[in-house]
Amino acid sequence: MKVNGTHYRTVWMEGWDAMFIDQLRLPFAFEIYRSVSYEQTCSVIRTMLVRGAGAIGAAAGFAMAQATYELHGKGIEAVAEARATIEVTRPTARNLFYATERVFDRYSATDSPQEALLEAHAIADEDSAACQQIGHYGQSLIADGARVQTHCNAGWLAFVDHGSALSPIYAARDAGKRVFVYADETRPRNQGAKLTAWELAQEGIEHAIVPDNAGAHIMSMGMVDIMIVGADRIARNGDTANKIGTLEKAICAKEYGIPFYIAAPTSTFDLGCASGREIIIEQRSDDEVLYGDGMLDDKTLGRCRISNPSSRAVNYGFDVTPARLIAGIITERGIIQPTEEDVRRIIHRS
Amino acid sequence: MKVNGTHYRTVWMEGWDAMFIDQLRLPFAFEIYRSVSYEQTCSVIRTMLVRGAGAIGAAAGFAMAQATYELHGKGIEAVAEARATIEVTRPTARNLFYATERVFDRYSATDSPQEALLEAHAIADEDSAACQQIGHYGQSLIADGARVQTHCNAGWLAFVDHGSALSPIYAARDAGKRVFVYADETRPRNQGAKLTAWELAQEGIEHAIVPDNAGAHIMSMGMVDIMIVGADRIARNGDTANKIGTLEKAICAKEYGIPFYIAAPTSTFDLGCASGREIIIEQRSDDEVLYGDGMLDDKTLGRCRISNPSSRAVNYGFDVTPARLIAGIITERGIIQPTEEDVRRIIHRS
Repeated sequence: MKVNGTHYRTVWMEGWDAMFIDQLRLPFAFEIYRSVSYEQTCSVIRTMLVRGAGAIGAAAGFAMAQATYELHGKGIEAVAEARATIEVTRPTARNLFYATERVFDRYSATDSPQEALLEAHAIADEDSAACQQIGHYGQSLIADGARVQTHCNAGWLAFVDHGSALSPIYAARDAGKRVFVYADETRPRNQGAKLTAWELAQEGIEHAIVPDNAGAHIMSMGMVDIMIVGADRIARNGDTANKIGTLEKAICAKEYGIPFYIAAPTSTFDLGCASGREIIIEQRSDDEVLYGDGMLDDKTLGRCRISNPSSRAVNYGFDVTPARLIAGIITERGIIQPTEEDVRRIIHRS
Repeated sequence: MKVNGTHYRTVWMEGWDAMFIDQLRLPFAFEIYRSVSYEQTCSVIRTMLVRGAGAIGAAAGFAMAQATYELHGKGIEAVAEARATIEVTRPTARNLFYATERVFDRYSATDSPQEALLEAHAIADEDSAACQQIGHYGQSLIADGARVQTHCNAGWLAFVDHGSALSPIYAARDAGKRVFVYADETRPRNQGAKLTAWELAQEGIEHAIVPDNAGAHIMSMGMVDIMIVGADRIARNGDTANKIGTLEKAICAKEYGIPFYIAAPTSTFDLGCASGREIIIEQRSDDEVLYGDGMLDDKTLGRCRISNPSSRAVNYGFDVTPARLIAGIITERGIIQPTEEDVRRIIHRS
């Protein structure tokens, strides 16, 4: 997608160097980070300079390819050790394991770092193509003049390109439709106010940041036509884990008859997970809630305590939206109902 | 209520000086502000050094009394002019007009600044007593060990003492019950994270700050037994205007079968307002959403941009919760149903 008019992916390779848009600096500065070794790429994943399921998967694939190049001739055990190092950078990211496995297997079959790199490129290209297809199917849901609400950032910054929840918006715009986006700020980390708003501004799409508190109000005023969000993990019955606050919006959308869609590549489905009840919700640091962070008035990056100093907070990373609140799931293979039947059908279709 | 173990009201008089807890410095510093003239007290109301319906009403009464003292002997027109000045400080605050009228009338009837001051003291005392009664009735809803969720700050800082939504919590504690409070942070101004959390900490009540996004999640996990919030204005059919985000919580509470109560003195009811549809929602500055403000790491107060610099925001000051989502309204005269019949009955009972 576009940044200052030039096309970028979130992550890509230049020779054997992995290149990243530095998401720790966005939206206040746009900087490219170059990683010259697999260990440096591990650190990029660990520090969340790159984040989002698809982008992490591609980064892990590139790290694995870098490792085969650096360790070529030192035996497959050395490469396997590097693989293990890559896999502990963000242990809950499913795409990461998928990517390291594919690149490692191609290398062991061919003994060629070049072949490993081709596999890593293929993973990134497939991620981009899947997201583009999500846009293709999803844009059919967006009427000309539609007001679309979204939560957190499930845009191209979370994938290699196009994004999941934002891809239908970009596709609708490309099809000549007028679209307005309400971007939930998405406390506590404010990825909506920071990343989604930045993406939309770069793409020239009209939008406004919505405090999480105002979601039900704008829905009640008839200001929202459809809501589309991403997913971290989808159980086989359609229950969907996503960024904290998704559940609250889904309940409100149902109250006002607003169709609530999930957009996610089929790699997000976990057939081994029967329902949302099996999903364990990560608790994160209180400080994310107790402080706001961003750009201070002197233009440096910093933080500000926005709460009573002696109080603690609760901070759940995501929540589970039950299938009954979901109008449909937009995948790269089409739009399905959030039912076990539909989920199995779409996963087993190749 | 207590601050560092000493009892304070939010606003009080020392001789002819009006005294205020400086709410612009809370929760980062506890400072008392002394206003020596009615014009200075007007500025205190205007700058929101004092805020909250009950506290503003008492402050306006004290300002009116100060004006009668300062302008005594200069004719009733001069006092009437001062009254007009006081009434434009926060034109949407209903309690303000009620207070100026009562103090002005007592002065015109008696020609005595002392009598005017007694009337102003009576208004403050009545506010405190009403809130204490709200606590008395409301605590019957709180079981021993209850987890109570609240939104924004409807504590004693918003009134002269005790508060509305928090008064039942203090009364339950005084009755020997164990209570845990989930305080919604309440973006964008974070009065929950700042003021409610500070109040609860001062009173030694166990609590945690909850990101607005996590409300539905903690409800879905069975972590909340009852929700109690305040009100800015209640229509005669029971529809209630309150801080933005109240509607969203009420919808989620209904989804999970959690009783959702409004706590407010009867002065909050507006019989001239047939339903929530007649209530116009104030839009506030984008900057409240785009920045977080509080204490910087160098301990000075400041702000931090927490959003994409080129984006705008929507910022509605409050929303309207329909009566059908409200389990009951806790007033100083008892708990009523949110129906026109009950509202008329409670208002016409003296």
